[in-house]
Amino acid sequence: YLFLFTTSHLTPFTSNFPDRSFGFLEDGTFKQRYLTSDVYWHKPGESMPFGQASYSDSKHLNYLTSEQALADFAILIKNVKSTLPGAQHSPVISIGGSYGGMLSAWFRMKYPNIVVGALAASAPIWQFPGMVPCGAFYKTVTQDFAKSGYNCEVNIRKSWSAINNISSSASGLVWLSEEFSLCGPLKNKNDVGSFKNWLQETWVNLAMVDYPYEANFLQPLPRWPIQAVCKYLTMDSTVSDKLLLQGVAQAAKVYYNYTGSTSCLNISQTATGNLGILGWFYQSCTEMVMPMCTDGVGDMFEPEEWNFQAFSDECNAMFGVRPRADWAEVVYGGKDISAHSNIIFSNGGLDPWSAGGVTHNISESLVSIMIPDGAHHLDLRYSNKHDPPTVRAARTLELMYFKEWIRQAKRPHRSHSHYRL
Amino acid sequence: YLFLFTTSHLTPFTSNFPDRSFGFLEDGTFKQRYLTSDVYWHKPGESMPFGQASYSDSKHLNYLTSEQALADFAILIKNVKSTLPGAQHSPVISIGGSYGGMLSAWFRMKYPNIVVGALAASAPIWQFPGMVPCGAFYKTVTQDFAKSGYNCEVNIRKSWSAINNISSSASGLVWLSEEFSLCGPLKNKNDVGSFKNWLQETWVNLAMVDYPYEANFLQPLPRWPIQAVCKYLTMDSTVSDKLLLQGVAQAAKVYYNYTGSTSCLNISQTATGNLGILGWFYQSCTEMVMPMCTDGVGDMFEPEEWNFQAFSDECNAMFGVRPRADWAEVVYGGKDISAHSNIIFSNGGLDPWSAGGVTHNISESLVSIMIPDGAHHLDLRYSNKHDPPTVRAARTLELMYFKEWIRQAKRPHRSHSHYRL
Repeated sequence: YLFLFTTSHLTPFTSNFPDRSFGFLEDGTFKQRYLTSDVYWHKPGESMPFGQASYSDSKHLNYLTSEQALADFAILIKNVKSTLPGAQHSPVISIGGSYGGMLSAWFRMKYPNIVVGALAASAPIWQFPGMVPCGAFYKTVTQDFAKSGYNCEVNIRKSWSAINNISSSASGLVWLSEEFSLCGPLKNKNDVGSFKNWLQETWVNLAMVDYPYEANFLQPLPRWPIQAVCKYLTMDSTVSDKLLLQGVAQAAKVYYNYTGSTSCLNISQTATGNLGILGWFYQSCTEMVMPMCTDGVGDMFEPEEWNFQAFSDECNAMFGVRPRADWAEVVYGGKDISAHSNIIFSNGGLDPWSAGGVTHNISESLVSIMIPDGAHHLDLRYSNKHDPPTVRAARTLELMYFKEWIRQAKRPHRSHSHYRL
Repeated sequence: YLFLFTTSHLTPFTSNFPDRSFGFLEDGTFKQRYLTSDVYWHKPGESMPFGQASYSDSKHLNYLTSEQALADFAILIKNVKSTLPGAQHSPVISIGGSYGGMLSAWFRMKYPNIVVGALAASAPIWQFPGMVPCGAFYKTVTQDFAKSGYNCEVNIRKSWSAINNISSSASGLVWLSEEFSLCGPLKNKNDVGSFKNWLQETWVNLAMVDYPYEANFLQPLPRWPIQAVCKYLTMDSTVSDKLLLQGVAQAAKVYYNYTGSTSCLNISQTATGNLGILGWFYQSCTEMVMPMCTDGVGDMFEPEEWNFQAFSDECNAMFGVRPRADWAEVVYGGKDISAHSNIIFSNGGLDPWSAGGVTHNISESLVSIMIPDGAHHLDLRYSNKHDPPTVRAARTLELMYFKEWIRQAKRPHRSHSHYRL
């Protein structure tokens, strides 16, 4: 059988093979990178419609839509099936994680003629306006830290005011920059805002990759990295701001310098490698509008409301586009997806994205698999001796469904007569 | 309940309300005409994205796609439901005939969150490459004439060589032009070719509108118009070319001059009014590639093979675009639509488009209704005392399905738990 892999960390998978845009005015084709299950792919060549210019302006970015990606998958699979000997009648299953998981689910919804079923791992298809509370995401992050070490969540919650206090003086800014080994020193209030955002994203990323073994997804990290981080955050309530922040700095370095080879910490990035973050930001500025908020009560972060208008203005300034808040719901059905079939939604209990995922069965063939001690699409990773039994069971169940879908697809259709009047 | 009407005679329904194109580069909106079931619509204002310029060039025509039309329907319905008091929770059913029927079926396939079901009347969703024999369409036309009068099909079949014989002389061209009361005289071989195409399309149109009562769809016509036409085509095998063609001319005038008010026949048009024929031609040059052919054996026409390359060249010359032969199959599933639900495909046995329609049940909720003595989407027309019992029964059955879909939609969903591992 053929498997289409679309795993990605919120990374636009803009593959095109050959590209077919929805309009017929431009008829260009370009090469698309793809993997089949029996091939290790080491060749260069990302699926970039316009090469280096792909992200250059809104004219080029205009092709970066989920609808285009789905149509590209359809063309790709049809092409592979017609050119790969023996594949012509093979049922195909789409598998994806994160944004790739959303695409995987949507692909089955929109193209059930192309794939007999889909695995959507850690796919937040409900992280859209009006579908889930905007604060649920950060609550999950907070819970991960609360259960990973004594006082861990409490100390992170306290760290924000400690940063505000220390950074109010020039000497405090120097001290902070040095304690965190920042590549560029913090100079003013704006820098401190960026610094806090960067720290917040660090904790979020740790929640996503809280895997039970050493891994290197967003950064090289030890097993159960939040536990490793929390070892530096056990101080009790009498701790001074500086001692607290020294602990936070050591905690952050677990994430940024586990290998010991990092000379300084750069607050303009939170992940190694190019995960297409600009492309994803463009998509969140167009179709993928995902409300997030914090209140400092149910979560350990500084309160910040979801402000669609401010977000829209930011998008307009950056890309010259404005997001369509209800687009994803109209096109992909929102909570009303019960007419579809053969999709597994798997979610990890540690993964903040599970807050926007499908975590209950919708019908007999739209099923949810919860992996309580799993982080972001743990089930799609290679198996590991440290895998918890829950993820092993999840994979077994997923394979069971795959086999059932393939069995269904190979069963000859009954013939039906029409109504003769 | 709200009903969305999308009937059309192979006419692009490019409604947009507000327009949302798939890209985000251009963000224009424009007015869209739509009907709700309790309103008779007499206001001017077609749904033309760029007004008079909508068909002006391929840049403007680039929005004329079925995918765009479906997305527009989704936005429209969402808008109507949120603004029409009491409509918020009303299940919606899409209803369409011909190309509108194809859109209706595809709309349910792609947007089951927006419509609980669809009636696709006389919708040739399989009139695409490799799905049905290219000659089936013209065979049905031929059968309609064969059973509507003695020697009718035989004499039309003979008429082509009679035209070739007569038009081989200058005096013959004059005679032909006068007999047919043509607005412009035939001058050369090219004109004769156009003349024959026009006659062929006339017979096709008659097959589409062979209704059991007076009607005015493509032209004002008597009841069972093919029978009226065939009254002039009963000559036996010894008839001369001229006598035969005099009969054909009188037959053609049944179609073009039933009201008696037509002063001359214009071979550049076969239907009154603007049915968006240019738009449809553009669509057939892009997504809606519908192979047709004749062999003069199973049908009454001059043999003509389906030549995709010649068609593609013609499209390129006219619009600067080339058709994508397999696009409709990839996007809309071709023969593999069994994963969908709640669609009625109704077809008329007299209608040549039934050759490309779904004329057998695919599943319990993808059902076919055949109306043996119905022409093109007869079931969608107003009821009439001359309606045959078969179309009355079809409408009853259609309503039965509508009620069932609405009942399903209103039934509270059972709650399901997820798999906890």
